[in-house]
Amino acid sequence: MQPIPPHLTPSRYPKRASYDRDAIHTILDEALVCTVSFTMDNKPFAIPTGFVRHEDKIYIHGSVGSHFIREIEKGLPVCITVTLLDAIVVSKSAFNHSMNYRSVILFATPEKMEDPQQKTEAFRWLTEKFVPNSWDYLQPVKESEVRKTTILAFSLEEASAKIRTGMPGEDEYKDLPIWSGIIPLETRRGTPVTEALSEGIPLPPHLL
Amino acid sequence: MQPIPPHLTPSRYPKRASYDRDAIHTILDEALVCTVSFTMDNKPFAIPTGFVRHEDKIYIHGSVGSHFIREIEKGLPVCITVTLLDAIVVSKSAFNHSMNYRSVILFATPEKMEDPQQKTEAFRWLTEKFVPNSWDYLQPVKESEVRKTTILAFSLEEASAKIRTGMPGEDEYKDLPIWSGIIPLETRRGTPVTEALSEGIPLPPHLL
Repeated sequence: MQPIPPHLTPSRYPKRASYDRDAIHTILDEALVCTVSFTMDNKPFAIPTGFVRHEDKIYIHGSVGSHFIREIEKGLPVCITVTLLDAIVVSKSAFNHSMNYRSVILFATPEKMEDPQQKTEAFRWLTEKFVPNSWDYLQPVKESEVRKTTILAFSLEEASAKIRTGMPGEDEYKDLPIWSGIIPLETRRGTPVTEALSEGIPLPPHLL
Repeated sequence: MQPIPPHLTPSRYPKRASYDRDAIHTILDEALVCTVSFTMDNKPFAIPTGFVRHEDKIYIHGSVGSHFIREIEKGLPVCITVTLLDAIVVSKSAFNHSMNYRSVILFATPEKMEDPQQKTEAFRWLTEKFVPNSWDYLQPVKESEVRKTTILAFSLEEASAKIRTGMPGEDEYKDLPIWSGIIPLETRRGTPVTEALSEGIPLPPHLL
């Protein structure tokens, strides 16, 4: 294993850090949005955006006219974060409350995809992440749509995960008759809602 | 109304932007974590962290030993983002897929809270956001705990919201027999899970 660069080592709870590829991939595949942070005129900017991981990179897309995309495609270094919340950790003392979470932080510079075929592939990865198995059912992406979209790839080489799981486990107040435990947070997909345009069209099998 | 500064005007879909205080507050009160982005050595860094809004400021806290907190408390400008996902927007064409979301972006510099009484108040706001009505039930925050925690406040003066709601509403493919609509995303709190330390202690009324 390579030495961990200092900017990837958290100063707090370093034991919660993980550099394991599978752990990082699992978080990235479950999260739908990331926050892309960059520096302009020595000031921080950040934009939340949808993304997909494929092999050892993540991909974001945006209009060729997007100010944000045009800034970072120049090759600006970015810091990308992804956060999943799993539970509120309720301890006996207000001070020791916490959260169970799984987060990824990634430092990278963008690679702009140029090949239209590869860009179309990235559209497929994105679409299938948000609606699995839907690509073949949908109206295909057109060449003109590919042309007016910028797709940027970011290597996961400098990525790390930080994870907290489990119970509060505080010692100091363990004998107090105050309830402690976790409140799980659950994110789920609800029942699809048909828009007026599609009334009478049956839900495709991948959405049932 | 004051003129909107250019860094608060999105280049894409400016009609989705809102500078309405109530809209911004509602998003900030529903979200549990924000991402704090800042610049060090001209490079971007970002950290997800819990927060609370109180009146016209948001508050984050961290150990006085946290590298992140010690950097930004010097007065670094930060960009704070908050994102809530409400639905996956499924259109007839792969290209026109979208998301319903409510996000806030905020530019500010930190104000460090010094008064122990006020810091304790901020602890109360944080605790009651994560577990409403729990403050009086819990073991109180101690003076030494307040001392070893830094609490930073950020004004909402330069905050804006960006919101997408509703159906895909694409025109180009409206007659195709392909299903379109939304898949709602729901985040909810599950049934509390008691830790071993608290077995036999009844759930307090605010958690029932």
